Amino acid sequence: MSLEQVLAQVDEALPQATARLEELLRIPSISTDPAHADACVHAADWLVADLQSIGFDASKRQTPGHPMVMAHGSDTGGPHVMFYGHYDVQPVDPLDLWDRPPFEPQVEDTPKGKVIRGRGSSDDKGQLMTFVEACRAWVAVHGSLPTKVSIFFEGEEESGSPSLVPFMTDNADELTADVALICDTGLFGDATPAIVTRLRGLLGEEITITGPNKDLHSGMYGGIAMNPIRVLSKIIAGLHDETGRITVPGFYDDVAELPEDIAKQWHDLGFSNAEFLGEVGLGVAAGEQGRTGLEMIWSRPTCEVNGISGGYEGEGFKTVLPSKASAKISFRLVPGQDPHALRKSFRAHVEAQLPSDCSVSFKGHGASPASEMTTTHPAFEAARGALSDEWPNPAAYVGCGGSIPIAGYFKDILGMDAMLIGFGKDDDQIHSPNEKYDLSSFHKGIRSWVRILDAISKT
Amino acid sequence: MSLEQVLAQVDEALPQATARLEELLRIPSISTDPAHADACVHAADWLVADLQSIGFDASKRQTPGHPMVMAHGSDTGGPHVMFYGHYDVQPVDPLDLWDRPPFEPQVEDTPKGKVIRGRGSSDDKGQLMTFVEACRAWVAVHGSLPTKVSIFFEGEEESGSPSLVPFMTDNADELTADVALICDTGLFGDATPAIVTRLRGLLGEEITITGPNKDLHSGMYGGIAMNPIRVLSKIIAGLHDETGRITVPGFYDDVAELPEDIAKQWHDLGFSNAEFLGEVGLGVAAGEQGRTGLEMIWSRPTCEVNGISGGYEGEGFKTVLPSKASAKISFRLVPGQDPHALRKSFRAHVEAQLPSDCSVSFKGHGASPASEMTTTHPAFEAARGALSDEWPNPAAYVGCGGSIPIAGYFKDILGMDAMLIGFGKDDDQIHSPNEKYDLSSFHKGIRSWVRILDAISKT
Repeated sequence: MSLEQVLAQVDEALPQATARLEELLRIPSISTDPAHADACVHAADWLVADLQSIGFDASKRQTPGHPMVMAHGSDTGGPHVMFYGHYDVQPVDPLDLWDRPPFEPQVEDTPKGKVIRGRGSSDDKGQLMTFVEACRAWVAVHGSLPTKVSIFFEGEEESGSPSLVPFMTDNADELTADVALICDTGLFGDATPAIVTRLRGLLGEEITITGPNKDLHSGMYGGIAMNPIRVLSKIIAGLHDETGRITVPGFYDDVAELPEDIAKQWHDLGFSNAEFLGEVGLGVAAGEQGRTGLEMIWSRPTCEVNGISGGYEGEGFKTVLPSKASAKISFRLVPGQDPHALRKSFRAHVEAQLPSDCSVSFKGHGASPASEMTTTHPAFEAARGALSDEWPNPAAYVGCGGSIPIAGYFKDILGMDAMLIGFGKDDDQIHSPNEKYDLSSFHKGIRSWVRILDAISKT
Repeated sequence: MSLEQVLAQVDEALPQATARLEELLRIPSISTDPAHADACVHAADWLVADLQSIGFDASKRQTPGHPMVMAHGSDTGGPHVMFYGHYDVQPVDPLDLWDRPPFEPQVEDTPKGKVIRGRGSSDDKGQLMTFVEACRAWVAVHGSLPTKVSIFFEGEEESGSPSLVPFMTDNADELTADVALICDTGLFGDATPAIVTRLRGLLGEEITITGPNKDLHSGMYGGIAMNPIRVLSKIIAGLHDETGRITVPGFYDDVAELPEDIAKQWHDLGFSNAEFLGEVGLGVAAGEQGRTGLEMIWSRPTCEVNGISGGYEGEGFKTVLPSKASAKISFRLVPGQDPHALRKSFRAHVEAQLPSDCSVSFKGHGASPASEMTTTHPAFEAARGALSDEWPNPAAYVGCGGSIPIAGYFKDILGMDAMLIGFGKDDDQIHSPNEKYDLSSFHKGIRSWVRILDAISKT
């Protein structure tokens, strides 16, 4: 079957593909907001109908939350791929920071080229539609797909995926394929596609220090009574040593050094700390001394305070010596680290630093290990070659600092490796006002999947 | 004029006096919150009308902020006293920790006796009304006051008193008397009244650290981007050394040791750290090593964090790496320390610790020096004798850890010494939920002022 004809079909049908994406973007499927539950169902129905229109055996599946969409193409005999995306989107507040209504998408001309503007345009409706459009082009030209394709969309990714693991467990057979494809990540650079093979895990902890049994007047008690903000600050300040290393006992025990070949690949990507940090107003890499910027965000574990709170936080001033102070602290974990063991170690570390008359309570917020793909499945090299054919620069195996739990679930529940390939850009403003997806990401994304399906079919 | 008759009148009219206090407590005069500005005016009007009803020439005086109340009794020829109190109150949050609505006061029976519960019951509406009720009793019995009395109430004490100094300067003649009386402090113990002769000053600073120019995703940026909460925590953690001393350069340069006679008096008060701290659930004195508890709260300077805020503080978890983090920090100052010089030193100290790509902004919240009274005016010994007549134990000259800047202003602007006499108790929960004032404090407070006015009239 001719690949070139399919790519030409993608180019020709881009206006129609864009119009379809805009139609999907107009459905306000905010999963975290119960007021938008109907919109989530609407988005699922839309996708089922669209997939049926190109020959998939597609259906909506109920869950205790928002529905899943499952679709299967006909069995062509080639390797079986399972594509994952999510049709739900982030909330849109603060609404007044949007330049246009978030659910009235439009193609805009910008100094950097055309973009599709609207909530979900990049995360993840635009990305998932790159795959659907690639399938449509194959079917339009050849009447069938080059390999066996299944599709799995969820509608709760932006609200913690409560139904995902039970659904995957209950439907393990149906969801198991030779390899998973996930489109929820980004390009490494404008001209450099990437396949994510390392994802950091996440350990979240909320700690609350209690000093006095009630809020006190800092005049009456200041000096003699221990202030829990002072205790909390000291604990937080001590979580990193002067070289940027995390001081929780045993934290690095199971952290391996990066293999030399990967280190070399990353070095060749020419990542610039100054450029990356400059875009957010910073200039100095804050992680462990002696590590590269890419190591800091991809292969080294971190500790961040995501929130801190205590005493009087309103306008003006109140001379209170508060009873409590609390912080939300998260650790990004790398392969080898056990989140449950580290939770214990962290809690013991905090307790060991408490003054004898203060107490601490802990609340866990998630504990997921890091994942590392084994890239020996032939689909990996096939996809890397296909991406390298489409883009100016060769594709790279990269890391991802964030946590994409679905990749771990495919591995742990279904025993499948996942290839994370996406076309988002750092400036897409996902989760923020004025989210966009470059029209070039959409167009070349579709072309990329056309090539990847072709390449995988030949493995 | 018979003192005993006036005291009997106080005892008899206590229910009416309590009802009047409850009426004043129902006015939610939170000065720091602009939404309550009308309530502040309402409280001032209420006081003007009440003072007029007992023969004072009373009026409300406009300021750029909340109004002052000024009132003058007729000139009886005796020494002229100027009584000060404040009608504004602290905010009430966290509201859910109140056992009853803060502005619906009520007399409650407790295991320790009857209390008047409500915001401002102790600080300072209950206290100021002890003096007003004492005047009312004198007028009820004798048709006039025993000495020349003026009254001065402000409505901005809990929000930094921005209008106070200009008003005192502009109205210096009208505000000058022989001695000032201030009712905003407490008993030393249930049976031991006190006259405060040392007050700590206050320097308030709000600092905001900015790292990245927007909130970041802690997965994408965690590790490489500096987190402003980490910077802020380190600065706060470093404000005290391991011996409890404050590390701001020059902080102790002008701090004198306590004179031996005062140290002896304080020692004789038999203050117990364990008992004082035990009441608020603590057990270890947190101040400078080698200092007594009374030194820590009365004669040594302190540094407290009154509030801290940054990142995501709501329910659940959000993996944000925030752009900003801020803290409200206050220093209690002792005689000799210059708040303006220390503000500069503090700011320089913070700036010196900033990573090169983070910035800090400061907002000052008040800067008042400590005060120390000279007790040679005969009114001091007259008041000490009168208090000793009313209470089981003799009255003591003590220190006060809080800042009552008005005492310093009376001295510096008007050349008057001030006697700080009050009837609050340590467990009044001022500035906290469930504030109360013992009915016995209110009752014996009124009786104390009746005696003090009598004693001063005879000097």
